[in-house]
Amino acid sequence: MQRVYNFSAGPAMLPEEVLKQAAEEMLDWRGTGMSVAEMSHRGKEYMSIAAEAEADLRELMAIPANYKVLFLQGGASSQFAMVPMNLFRGHKKADYLLTGSWGKKAISEAKRYGTVNVACDASAGSGKFTFAPKQGDLSLSADADYVHYTPNETIEGVSFPYIPEVGDKPLVADFSSAILSGSLDVSRYGVIYAGAQKNIGPAGLTICIVRDDLLGQTIAGTPTMFDYKTHADNESMYNTPATYAWYLAGLVFKWLKERGGIAAQAAVNTRKAEKLYAAIDSNDFYGNPVEVSSRSIMNVPFTLADAALDAAFLSEAKAAGLVTLKGHRSVGGMRASIYNAMPEAGVDALVAFMANFAKRHG
Amino acid sequence: MQRVYNFSAGPAMLPEEVLKQAAEEMLDWRGTGMSVAEMSHRGKEYMSIAAEAEADLRELMAIPANYKVLFLQGGASSQFAMVPMNLFRGHKKADYLLTGSWGKKAISEAKRYGTVNVACDASAGSGKFTFAPKQGDLSLSADADYVHYTPNETIEGVSFPYIPEVGDKPLVADFSSAILSGSLDVSRYGVIYAGAQKNIGPAGLTICIVRDDLLGQTIAGTPTMFDYKTHADNESMYNTPATYAWYLAGLVFKWLKERGGIAAQAAVNTRKAEKLYAAIDSNDFYGNPVEVSSRSIMNVPFTLADAALDAAFLSEAKAAGLVTLKGHRSVGGMRASIYNAMPEAGVDALVAFMANFAKRHG
Repeated sequence: MQRVYNFSAGPAMLPEEVLKQAAEEMLDWRGTGMSVAEMSHRGKEYMSIAAEAEADLRELMAIPANYKVLFLQGGASSQFAMVPMNLFRGHKKADYLLTGSWGKKAISEAKRYGTVNVACDASAGSGKFTFAPKQGDLSLSADADYVHYTPNETIEGVSFPYIPEVGDKPLVADFSSAILSGSLDVSRYGVIYAGAQKNIGPAGLTICIVRDDLLGQTIAGTPTMFDYKTHADNESMYNTPATYAWYLAGLVFKWLKERGGIAAQAAVNTRKAEKLYAAIDSNDFYGNPVEVSSRSIMNVPFTLADAALDAAFLSEAKAAGLVTLKGHRSVGGMRASIYNAMPEAGVDALVAFMANFAKRHG
Repeated sequence: MQRVYNFSAGPAMLPEEVLKQAAEEMLDWRGTGMSVAEMSHRGKEYMSIAAEAEADLRELMAIPANYKVLFLQGGASSQFAMVPMNLFRGHKKADYLLTGSWGKKAISEAKRYGTVNVACDASAGSGKFTFAPKQGDLSLSADADYVHYTPNETIEGVSFPYIPEVGDKPLVADFSSAILSGSLDVSRYGVIYAGAQKNIGPAGLTICIVRDDLLGQTIAGTPTMFDYKTHADNESMYNTPATYAWYLAGLVFKWLKERGGIAAQAAVNTRKAEKLYAAIDSNDFYGNPVEVSSRSIMNVPFTLADAALDAAFLSEAKAAGLVTLKGHRSVGGMRASIYNAMPEAGVDALVAFMANFAKRHG
C-alpha cells in the first residue's frame, strides 16, 4: 500500500494514525465485541465516546462554559438556513460579509427568511474574490440581528486576518475550512459552525458552537431538527446522531492533543503555507491572485501562467502521488488544500514537484 | 476478539463481512492510496462508489425508474418535517395512521405545517400500541394531500401486515426499521424514507425514495436543504453527502445481493422471528402484547412475567454475549431487534438462553 498526498478541499485527508486506529477497532471497540458503528447511541460505551470527543474539543478550542457544542448533520448548507431561523429576531435583518462563494450561498439562503445587508462585497468591480476587506470598510447596520462572515473561503483561498468587530451583535462564522487550524477566541462569537470534512473528520457531521443566550427563539415554521435548542437540550441526541463520524472526530481531536494542540498545529500549518506560497511567488510560472494579507493557510489556489499546461501538471502530479489538485471550476487552475492532516512532507513534495515541473516546462 | 450478538434497535449490528472489508480498505481503497472517507465526493472514484450503491439498492428493491433515490442526512426526524414541507398542497391536510411512538412524533411535526387527520389511533382506549388496524377501520379524508404511516413501529414491535389502500393519494411510509427486510412494491408509494442505522448502514444517512411527480412544490419557508428537488436535481450531491456512510451502505447492499437478495433475506428474517416468538409464547414466563397478525419480524419486545427478574436477565444475557436487550423505557421489559445483520445463530443463542433462564428462574 502506497498512501498518496491528497490535496482535496473536502472530504480531505485524515491522519493516518486515526485511520489505523479506526481500522483496528472496526470489529471490536475495546473488548465490547462490537464496532462503534453498531453501538446504540444511548448505551454507556457510546455515551462515553461522545462525551470524551466533546470534552477534547472544548479543551482544544478553550470553549467557554456558556457555549453549547452540538454535533449535527446536514453540513454548512443546512446552517445557511439554521442561522437565520434561529437568530432572526424582531428586525429579521442581518449583515453578511461577502468574500467568496460560500458566503454568497449563505446570503442567498438567509434572504429567504429576512433582510440581508451585504456589509461588504469583495468582488465588487472585479467580479472576483481576492481579499478580505478592512474593518473600516464594513457597512454594518445598527439594527442587524447578527453579523455573518466566512473566515476562510475554501474555493478562493481568501481568509480574514482579523476578527470583525461588531459591537454587541452576535458574530456568526462559517469556519468549515479553518476550524482547528489556529487559535481562536470563541468568546468573540455568537455561533461558530463547521462541516467536519476538512479539519474534523468524515463528511456527514457538522459542529456548531452556540452561545447559550441565543438558544430558544426561532422564526415560525422552523423544523424541530433546525432548532439549535432541540439539540442543545438533548446533548445532540434528540435523534440518532452520526455516531461513527462523531467517533472519528473524537480520534482526530485526540491526535491533535497528542501533537501539542492547536498552537503546535498552527505553527506547522503556517510553515506549510509559507513554503507553498513561496514556491508560487518565486517565479512567474505560477501565480496566486489573493492579496498577501488575506491569503488562506488552508486552501491555496494557484494558476499556471500557461493554462495549456494544466492537464500535464495534474497528470504528472498524480503520477508523483500528489492528487486532487484541480482547482474549483469557478476559479480554474489548481488548488492545494493543506488541512491539519496534510503532513508537512506532503507540502514539501508538492513544492519540489512544482519546481521540477516549472524547470521542465518553463 | 469475541464478537457479541447485539440486539440494539439502532444503530445496530452490521454484517461482519462488511466491517472486515471496511477495515481492510480503511487506508487504501483499491490502490487509490486513500480511504473512502478522504475522497472528494466530486472525484471519479467516489462517484463510482455512490452510483454503484444506488444501482444495487434499485436492483434489490426493484425501484421503478420514475422514483428518485436520495442519500440524505438528518434521519427520520428530519423527514417528519420534510414530508409535509414537500407534500402539502392546497389543502395542507394529511391523513396519518398512528400505531406507535414514531408515528406520534411524525404527527406532532406535521401539525406545525398544516392539518393532520389521525386516520386511526391504535392506542385509543388502552393507551398502548399493540396492533395495526384493519383497512376498513381507517378514517381517510377525501381532501388529504397524502397519507402517512409507519409500516413497522420500532419501539412497540407493531407491523402492518398489508399496504394501506389510499386511492390516488401519495402514500408516505417511514420504513426506518423495516426497509430491505422483505419484498416491497415501491410503486404503491409516493415517498419511502428510512434512517440507515437499522438495515442499511451506519447512523447519519437517510434514504429517501420519492416518486418524481411529487418533486418541486414546497411550502413557503422550506429550507433549500429540506427540498427533495434540491437533492434529486443534484444526485444527492448538492452539498457534501455523508460519503463514508453511503459507502458502507453500498457494502451492505452488495452483501445482501450475494446472499440472494431480499427474498432470500426475508425467508431468514421470517424464520428468525418465528423462532423468537415461539420461545416467548411457549410458556407464561415470557410475554408479548402484540396481536399475532401485527407482530414485527424486526423488533420483538417481550416482558418477563416477574419484572423483578429483568436485571438478572439482562446481566446474565450480557455474560452470554447477548447484549442491548433492554426494552424502550416507554414499554419496559426487553426488546430484541433482529435486523438483517443479526445472524440466525444469534437468535438461536437468545432462544436457548431464554429457555435456560426460564428453567432456572421459573
